Amino acid sequence: MRSTVENAELALLLEVSSTPKPGNVDRAREYPDLRFEHFLAGAVGAREGLVALADPDRPLGTAFERAVAGMSQQSGGNTQFGAVLLLAPLVRAVARGDSLPEGAGAVVEATTVDDAVAFYTAFDHVDVAVDDPPADAADLDVRLGSDAEPAIRARDLTLADALALSAERDGIAAEWVGGFERTVAAAAAIESRDGPVTDRAASAYLDLLAAEVDTFVVTQHDRETALAVRDRAQAVTDGEEAVEAFARDLVDRGINPGTTADLIAGGLFVALSRGLEV
Amino acid sequence: MRSTVENAELALLLEVSSTPKPGNVDRAREYPDLRFEHFLAGAVGAREGLVALADPDRPLGTAFERAVAGMSQQSGGNTQFGAVLLLAPLVRAVARGDSLPEGAGAVVEATTVDDAVAFYTAFDHVDVAVDDPPADAADLDVRLGSDAEPAIRARDLTLADALALSAERDGIAAEWVGGFERTVAAAAAIESRDGPVTDRAASAYLDLLAAEVDTFVVTQHDRETALAVRDRAQAVTDGEEAVEAFARDLVDRGINPGTTADLIAGGLFVALSRGLEV
Repeated sequence: MRSTVENAELALLLEVSSTPKPGNVDRAREYPDLRFEHFLAGAVGAREGLVALADPDRPLGTAFERAVAGMSQQSGGNTQFGAVLLLAPLVRAVARGDSLPEGAGAVVEATTVDDAVAFYTAFDHVDVAVDDPPADAADLDVRLGSDAEPAIRARDLTLADALALSAERDGIAAEWVGGFERTVAAAAAIESRDGPVTDRAASAYLDLLAAEVDTFVVTQHDRETALAVRDRAQAVTDGEEAVEAFARDLVDRGINPGTTADLIAGGLFVALSRGLEV
Repeated sequence: MRSTVENAELALLLEVSSTPKPGNVDRAREYPDLRFEHFLAGAVGAREGLVALADPDRPLGTAFERAVAGMSQQSGGNTQFGAVLLLAPLVRAVARGDSLPEGAGAVVEATTVDDAVAFYTAFDHVDVAVDDPPADAADLDVRLGSDAEPAIRARDLTLADALALSAERDGIAAEWVGGFERTVAAAAAIESRDGPVTDRAASAYLDLLAAEVDTFVVTQHDRETALAVRDRAQAVTDGEEAVEAFARDLVDRGINPGTTADLIAGGLFVALSRGLEV
């Protein structure tokens, strides 16, 4: 039987291998500077940090930072920052033997100021596309990386607090503070289907993409673009548009619904933890 | 910088992701019962054994057996037995700081009878397609698995001795006892090219396939088939046949040059260890 750590790494690998996943790097599509092999190296490099995440005696924040540092040891840039962030409380909860999603919510609740500092430090390792912070929290811009430590400590900000700041603009932060509803829905969508796991995950991705706007597309482009992507995903699931044409068009335009892909990685982990066979 | 263990796992993942690799599972081609995702799970599962292989204080044979046991935790069957066997002495040598291929040759020389017993025990975990042993060594048929232990001990057979028995019929055993010449050639072929690593590895695969018969094809089919595959690979590298047609035909006929794929995994590891960037 696979360990929790193995399931987490495998979830990252299965996610990027699931195709077609319009707009995201997958087994059949990549960008010139962000390729499939970068995601493989990202998953392999993240594993030491996943080991730390699965050890309840090690602080969650530094374990996450370790995973991001390892993930970043490849030349593609940010491959799985959001996915690892989503996995962090899930892995910790499963390693403790706690049920999901409640156990992951408890992990979030228990995060500390030190965890927040480590989370910000993770941004030192890789460029992550994020929105500007609220005007009254400019000193908490994650792009400051470890330079934000004084502000974090002055405000006594836990990691849960930090993610709450961006929950409206970031789908992964929303999962952290909202009980992992969409992650669990992704797992259920994967489990409810038949066939190869990567085919199931690709279908679940389309479902998720059709259900809500992808916050990463909002950040990189705008809400109008994200709404159009959502509606076209719905048209694909309704059989009104071919998925291949949709996928080609998003890659051509550099539209990358990365948050939805991250949710699939989380859903794959939850499903693997519940016994999904590969 | 990636660790030796990370490079070894990444080599397994890059190998299966390199496409087109006619006849083998790759990013674009799979068999109904042996799919891409099985190789991902195989690589993830092998890692604990790779950790043991990278620890000079742990016996090589049991480390290999651990890697195979982990690799086997997926429903596709034998995904990377040969690749892990090839990696074993390479990983141990690099972890020791020894140069390749000489260091790996020294690891082979130093194998023990206990290593041979563990090697046979690895066959308990997974069905591996092999030829019949020589008539005077029926009690050393690897398919006996751990049941061969009394015969191994009675004959005082080291793991190097065991592989020497099949070096004429098995390309990986030939590497073990012959100084890893083709593995190093694969690494050089990968290093000499430009572009994405998976493209380079696919080209190197065709070179190797065109140069010598694949022993796994001989085992699964016959020498005539293997010779025809070699010659068609040469025609593809000469530009006389399209690689896609070749790949389709081999998959249709279930012809799987697995030994050549294993050599690419070994070559990728050597190249990564020497600084190949991903």
